[in-house]
This record gives sequence, structure tokens and C-alpha cells, in this order.
Amino acid sequence: MKAEIITIGDEILIGQIVDTNSAWIADRFNASGIEIYQITSVHDEHNHIVEALNNAAKNVDLVVITGGLGPTKDDITKNTLCEYFNTSLVFHEATYEHIKKRFVARGIDMNKLNRDQALVPKECTVLFNKTGTAPGMWFEKEGTIFVSMPGVPFEMKYLIDNEVLPRLLKNGKTKVIYHKTVLTQGLPESMLAQKIESWETALPEFIKLAYLPSPISVRLRLSATGNSSEELKVAVDAEIEKLKQIIGDNIFGYNNETLAEIIGRSLVKSGNKLAVAESCTGGYLSHLITSVAGSSAFYNGSVTAYSNPIKESVLGVDSSVLEKYGAVSEQVAIAMATGVKRLLKTEYSVATTGIAGPGGGTDEKPVGTVWIAIAGKESIKAKKFVFGDNRERNIIRSSQTALQMLRQLILDEE
Amino acid sequence: MKAEIITIGDEILIGQIVDTNSAWIADRFNASGIEIYQITSVHDEHNHIVEALNNAAKNVDLVVITGGLGPTKDDITKNTLCEYFNTSLVFHEATYEHIKKRFVARGIDMNKLNRDQALVPKECTVLFNKTGTAPGMWFEKEGTIFVSMPGVPFEMKYLIDNEVLPRLLKNGKTKVIYHKTVLTQGLPESMLAQKIESWETALPEFIKLAYLPSPISVRLRLSATGNSSEELKVAVDAEIEKLKQIIGDNIFGYNNETLAEIIGRSLVKSGNKLAVAESCTGGYLSHLITSVAGSSAFYNGSVTAYSNPIKESVLGVDSSVLEKYGAVSEQVAIAMATGVKRLLKTEYSVATTGIAGPGGGTDEKPVGTVWIAIAGKESIKAKKFVFGDNRERNIIRSSQTALQMLRQLILDEE
Repeated sequence: MKAEIITIGDEILIGQIVDTNSAWIADRFNASGIEIYQITSVHDEHNHIVEALNNAAKNVDLVVITGGLGPTKDDITKNTLCEYFNTSLVFHEATYEHIKKRFVARGIDMNKLNRDQALVPKECTVLFNKTGTAPGMWFEKEGTIFVSMPGVPFEMKYLIDNEVLPRLLKNGKTKVIYHKTVLTQGLPESMLAQKIESWETALPEFIKLAYLPSPISVRLRLSATGNSSEELKVAVDAEIEKLKQIIGDNIFGYNNETLAEIIGRSLVKSGNKLAVAESCTGGYLSHLITSVAGSSAFYNGSVTAYSNPIKESVLGVDSSVLEKYGAVSEQVAIAMATGVKRLLKTEYSVATTGIAGPGGGTDEKPVGTVWIAIAGKESIKAKKFVFGDNRERNIIRSSQTALQMLRQLILDEE
Repeated sequence: MKAEIITIGDEILIGQIVDTNSAWIADRFNASGIEIYQITSVHDEHNHIVEALNNAAKNVDLVVITGGLGPTKDDITKNTLCEYFNTSLVFHEATYEHIKKRFVARGIDMNKLNRDQALVPKECTVLFNKTGTAPGMWFEKEGTIFVSMPGVPFEMKYLIDNEVLPRLLKNGKTKVIYHKTVLTQGLPESMLAQKIESWETALPEFIKLAYLPSPISVRLRLSATGNSSEELKVAVDAEIEKLKQIIGDNIFGYNNETLAEIIGRSLVKSGNKLAVAESCTGGYLSHLITSVAGSSAFYNGSVTAYSNPIKESVLGVDSSVLEKYGAVSEQVAIAMATGVKRLLKTEYSVATTGIAGPGGGTDEKPVGTVWIAIAGKESIKAKKFVFGDNRERNIIRSSQTALQMLRQLILDEE
């Protein structure tokens, strides 16, 4: 089944709000085997809404409309749909009772605008909206289903989960889709593509591949469509097994896992603890780790040493080392990792020191130069990177790279 | 001028990412006097892209296309545009040199896919993309302008601000616009609106006001349209002077300044230094401070103490205090602030301790309970907050609130 989402509302088109509804619906529908063909955002404007409905009806079996159902003048979706489906508004007793109950519960008097919320198009199935005053509406016209819902996120979500999806499933309208995303690191998109080209070409017709690059990793999403989610899962997993033969070392996880979560899981399993010493990453590396719920089970904490005296006094970096090699050096990175491991009494540690920019670069050590050290139970090592000239991205890439090195060290040692 | 935004990419239509680009572009364009007529998201699919382009060309003067310009097989925007504009790909020397330079700087070899990024449609104006390997492309056809850009947010933003908007202005397609945003704190939106009502009503016709609320502040954006940016600046500044008479105490900055930048400026001026002790914010507060370029001039660093033993051994929090009051308490917050100030030898410090969630809450101290302490040269104080049940938002709100308290303390003491 193919669907289009139409969001109605000026606030989206002037950039006042980000349309998060569409991604939520798309994710929900995809998981139910409904393909989203297009997402269209239009103004609260009669002709424009009609044009969008006509365009959608040409391409899809299901049109999901959100927004424009409020009680005020600028909300014109209901009247526009009435005209589009050539019907008229009638009073809907159950909706009226529901609205009245809500107002009584809040001790507020209803006015005409509130009562008008109980008027619905004669030719629609009313979808009961427990969470608000505007009901959902379900229309069918020439084989296409149209569903209209309020744009308020929690009302829309209630209607999708409790009214729309159950109805579609009952009518046998949904196909099964199975997704799995492979998280890779260490190969830029183009090199990765070259390496897995023959695997990609040999994928069966019903499995599609998408590359989703980010500054530090490339995600490969496999999407399979068919009749049985069990069969699709088996087929996708089999392809991933083949992929592992080619780039196994670069795969670090699946789906929405983060590196910090994966690291946390191994540390909890082995009962080891982690500490962090940061200079150029300034707290961001610690933030990535503590973004994991329950991270206190494997994380003791961090020191951000943003000046040389602090590197000396708190982390115990030797002043002669700082003087001889400079703060951005292999020696200082290693001394920071060693120092924080001792200070916070852990088995593992990571340290970053570098020039995030925009100032502070030299010919020898340009902006973007970063040393990352990792210490484990048996070994300690450091590596130099030269990232770009953007402060924010240097902080992010340094932090993610540090996690990547840490993950490798844990794999090697455990 | 009317525009449509077309975003191309399967990841949007399966709900894997939220389309934040469109809201950013809509806001930027709207501020420049360009109306967004529609936002359309389509798949990486040839016929579908062509259909969207045809539909858009019927309604608008400018079509802004993002996405689908990566080097891999699933990115087909460039070839599709080539066909749509009836042209062919040619080698673009300047783009090639730019790509080569980026690869050389990183010590990576270029492959064919990378080199192919330098192929551009013959009939387009190439928009130089300093921030990435895929250039922007500007086409004109039957009076409509089409601009294609990568979907990576920072690359798209760079091209809009440095290539697209300046060209539209030069061609007389937009008016001169001058914006200034006033950052306020301490008044909820509705109270603020009431307080400045008569000022707002008296604004001249060519200056528009927008309220932009966020969880911790309300921004007031003044947008003036006219012919001379010098004149607009003078007029807007005069209105802001009047506004200062009414809510001067609530204004903490302008435009895109962050709280951390404003704090940093006062500290640099007074020659004082700052330290941070974090528990529930886990490094994020330190990250906000070190996101400021040049923050090492006023920031010595931080300790993330993610366990009680570390609060004791590193920050010197008394074990009896921890036992008696618990880690999330006024006493521990104050001891952390005092301890980190001493350890990192600063005049100011901030400490956070709380329950970010989802676990760890009790009846007495539910998830979202946070104590924040600030210490200055003369005083130290702590305050309790109860935020929500979302871990990520609790971390952000605690960190921003800590900076807000710090700013007030610095104002009081200096």
C-alpha cells in the first residue's frame, strides 16, 4: 500500500515549527508495510489543499492529512474536505458529548466555536479522538482512503495507533516491510561503495540498499518487502552475513545503537569501568557517554583539563613533557589517559588533546590536529588525526573517533 | 517571490530522519521576503523527482532542491536534473581542484566516484561548496530558478547564505532585510507580550516582530524591509532602545549569542576564571562552555563526578554529607561547587547534581529533580528544580539553567 502525507498549516511553511509529525507517521507506517510515496506541506488555503488532494489521489491508495482542524477561522481543512467529497456538515452526537464532558471537567463554558467542533462531514467515518476535541475523519473515494487528523502531535499519534492502523490491518491493506541498518566505520562512503559493489549488485530484487552517511560513520540500510516478516528477516540477515565477510571489521553495530551504548554494554558485561580526560573535546565526549541511560554502571567520570596547569595539577601530566612536546602531542595524550585512569580508578580511559579552532593553529600543528590516547588493562596507545577547520565538527569527530578507538581496544582486550 | 522546497531522499520518507532543513530554509527565506508555497519530500526516484519539478514549476518562481547529490548509486539528483534541463555532464576544473585538495589534506586517495563529483551539468551555474565535495547548481528555465544543494545541513546552510541568497539579492529578487533578535529571560511569553504590547503596537509598518520561545528564553526577532540596510539598522536599533526602557533587565543578549558567550565575555573582561562540576549533566555543561571559540581564556575545565566515590576523592565532598543528604541535595551541590573551584583554582564555579532519568527516581526525589549550585568570589548559593521525565531534555535544561544562574551571579558581583 502506498500513502502520501499532507500536512496543512502556515506555521510549517514559514519555518516556525519543524514538521516532526511526518517522520513519526512515516516510521510507523513503514514498520506496518505502508510505503510513504510523498510528504507535502501546504498552506491553510482552500485551492491549495484541493490541488494537493488531487495530486495525491493520482499516486497513492491512502492520503493522510494532518492539521487545520482547530476551532478558529484560519483552520479550514474540515470545510475544504466537505466540499471535496461533495457532502455537508452534520451534527455528531457522540463527539458533542465528548467535547461537553471535557469542558465540564475543566469547569469552562463552551462557546459556539467549541460546539462547531461536533459538526462532521456526513459522508465520513468519525474516528473518536479521546485526546482532544477535534475528531479524526475517514473518507473513501474511488478506491482511495483519505484520513484527516488534528496536527497536535499527541492527538495525531493517538488516532494513528488506535484508529487508523487497526482499521488498515483489518482491511488487509498493508504489506510487510523489514528494515535493518548496518552501522559501519572507518571507510568513507565512496570507498565503502567500491568495496561492496558486487555484493550490492547481487542483492535480490526485493531488498533495497541505502547509504546514510554522517560525519563519522556510514549506515547501510537494507529494506525488504514481501509477505512474511519472518522470511524477510531471514533473507536480510543472510545478506548481512555475506556483507560481514567483506567489511566485518568495519561493522560496529545495527539499527539505532550508538557507539557509547555498544561500549557500555561490553563494559557492564566485563565489570570494567571507564574514565575520560578531555582537552579539545571540552566535555562532549563525556556527554556522549552519559547520554546512555544507566551509564553510571560503567562510567566513573571525566576531567576536562582546559589549561596546562590543570593538566599538571589534576591529571599529573609532567610539566617537562608539556614544555618539550606541547599540549597537543602523543606524549601528553598518553599522560592524560594514564592520569585520569589512576585518578578515577578505572580499567579503561580515553584522552583527547588537540586544536579545535578557529584559533590556535600553527604550520606544524594546524587547526584540526588532534591526538587521541586510549588506555586499557594491558596496553596504551595514541593516534594523531587531522580533521577540518570547523570547531563544532572537530569536537564531534574527535569524540566519535575516540569512542571508535576505545571500542577496538575493548574488543582486542576482552 | 514564491518558492517551493523539494527534499529528495528515501530516509525522510521512511521516517529515519526528521526534515529539519526545510524549516531552516523556510525561516531564512521568509525573513528575506520569499514566501514558501509548498514543501515536498520525494524518493530518490527519477520519475518522481521529475513530477515534483514539473508541479513546482507551475506554481513558483524558485525551486530549492536538497539531497541526492552524494557519490553513490542511490543518489540520482544530478543525473535527473541533467535530463530535466536537457543538458549533459561536463568536467568542472575548479570543483575537481577543490575536491582534490580536501582529499590530499586528509591523506586519502580519490577514487572514480570522488572524481565524478566534479562532473556538473553543462547548463548550470556551479555554486562553490567550500564545506563539502558536491557543489550547488543553479539553473534557469522559462523564468523559474532551480537551485540544487546537498542535503547535509551545514553544507546546505553554507550554500544558502553564501551563494543562493546573495545571488537573489543581486538579481533584485529579494528586498533588503535587516534582522536583529533580542534575547530575553525571566518572563514567560504571555507576560512578555503583555508588558511590551504598546511598544509592539507602535512599531512602524516596515518592522515586523516575531516571538520565538524556547524552553529557557524568549527571543524577539525584529525584521525590517526596505532599500538601505544602513537605514534599517538605525531604525531597528532605535526601537530596541525603546524596548530596553521597558524590559532592560530581561534582555541578556542579541542575535545568535549564547549564554556561554555572554558569560565568557564578562569573565575575560574581569580576568576571572570558571570551573564546572557535573553529575547529572555529565559533561554537557562543559561542552556548552567550550563550544565558545577562545573559551580557554576564561575556562579552566571541569570534573564529571559520575559516582559518589569520585565526588569524595576528586571534589572533596564529605562522605558524611553524601550519606546524610544523598547525592542529589543542596549540600552536595554546594560542596561540589566549592570543591571544583578549589581544585581548578578559579573565581567562579557551577555544579549540577540530579536525576536525569529514566531510572533512579524516588517518591521524594522524582526523575527530573536537579540541584544547581553557583559559587562566586563572595557568595555561594544553590537552587532546586524539578524538570521533566526525558533524560536528554533534563540534561539540556539543567545545563542552560546553570548558565543562567551563573550569568546572574556574575552580574551581581561585578
